[in-house]
Amino acid sequence: MTRGRFITFEGTEGVGKSTQIETARAALASAGVEVLVTREPGGTPMAEAIRELLLTPRDESVNPLTELLLMFAARAQHLHEHILPALDRGCWVLCDRFTDATYAYQGGGRGVPMEQIALLEQLVQGDLRPDHTILLDAPVETGMARARDRSAPDRFEQEKMEFFQRIRDCYRQRAAEQPQRYHIVDATGSLEEVSRQIASLVLSFRH
Amino acid sequence: MTRGRFITFEGTEGVGKSTQIETARAALASAGVEVLVTREPGGTPMAEAIRELLLTPRDESVNPLTELLLMFAARAQHLHEHILPALDRGCWVLCDRFTDATYAYQGGGRGVPMEQIALLEQLVQGDLRPDHTILLDAPVETGMARARDRSAPDRFEQEKMEFFQRIRDCYRQRAAEQPQRYHIVDATGSLEEVSRQIASLVLSFRH
Repeated sequence: MTRGRFITFEGTEGVGKSTQIETARAALASAGVEVLVTREPGGTPMAEAIRELLLTPRDESVNPLTELLLMFAARAQHLHEHILPALDRGCWVLCDRFTDATYAYQGGGRGVPMEQIALLEQLVQGDLRPDHTILLDAPVETGMARARDRSAPDRFEQEKMEFFQRIRDCYRQRAAEQPQRYHIVDATGSLEEVSRQIASLVLSFRH
Repeated sequence: MTRGRFITFEGTEGVGKSTQIETARAALASAGVEVLVTREPGGTPMAEAIRELLLTPRDESVNPLTELLLMFAARAQHLHEHILPALDRGCWVLCDRFTDATYAYQGGGRGVPMEQIALLEQLVQGDLRPDHTILLDAPVETGMARARDRSAPDRFEQEKMEFFQRIRDCYRQRAAEQPQRYHIVDATGSLEEVSRQIASLVLSFRH
């Protein structure tokens, strides 16, 4: 039994992650690959309950360290109870956001020290990292306009434009530092063009 | 302005923590000390929501690391948004359980490595530790019988007797290792006798 591939999708709001994860799933399924699609924070009932805690707008000011620990609490549950068992039985896992999002949102966005994130990453994941990370990249303004058309803003989407600019910068910097794992896809192209690239990319991961 | 004292109350189920915290509060208030009574996990709306997540019995098996990270997420919120501001304005804080309970329950009880707990303690608290910790100590059987009479068991109270025996052992070991901070009170005495000791103890902390 070959272990499955762990593929994560990253990017700021409204870049089309959900659509492109479905494209990837369909392409792999057509090629006979067993695929599990999941998301962070969330992915199990307990982790989804933590997601609710994180996303609900509230009067109380949420300490950045609280937010960080909740993210990794949800991740520990998701990873150990859901993702790792799937990979072990040979299933590929497509995950909407993972630890790169913590570096980008809590680190780049909120200014939480990167060493604190690295410490929790090591505690929860040991040496496990995604096999491939697809960064859907677009100017912040483009994505935000799409996200606003979609639904009422959650606690993160209420943040200012500069917050999301710092997140995009952080993602791009990480992609530049880890070119063997990161694949940047320009999300400003037409839906057909982006989908074609995504399908071709994930199919290439089989080799 | 003198900084307030941070006093925590520890012990296994049913040893009378709530009753004795009220005794301590009343004794200090009579002596003119401003007192804040709070509890862990909990103490703020967000931290109480995390407490609910932790205590609700559920079908999903909860990863020990998830539980540990949720405990410290609640603690970060409680400490930084509630306890530290109170201590800074000179208020004394009486807290029903704190990090010693994490060592006892998650470490001693569940077998989570003590180094993982120490790492999160340092991340969330830096060098802050309680000024005094009162351990209400009684044989596990005594306390469990009292707790059972009180209400339906939560997710922790459903554990077996050996689980609580390991917790008591861990508390007693920590108390032996840190005699300057820990005060052991025999909780098997009469209510009047235990209350008298607690009142006298907390009043002595003024000097």
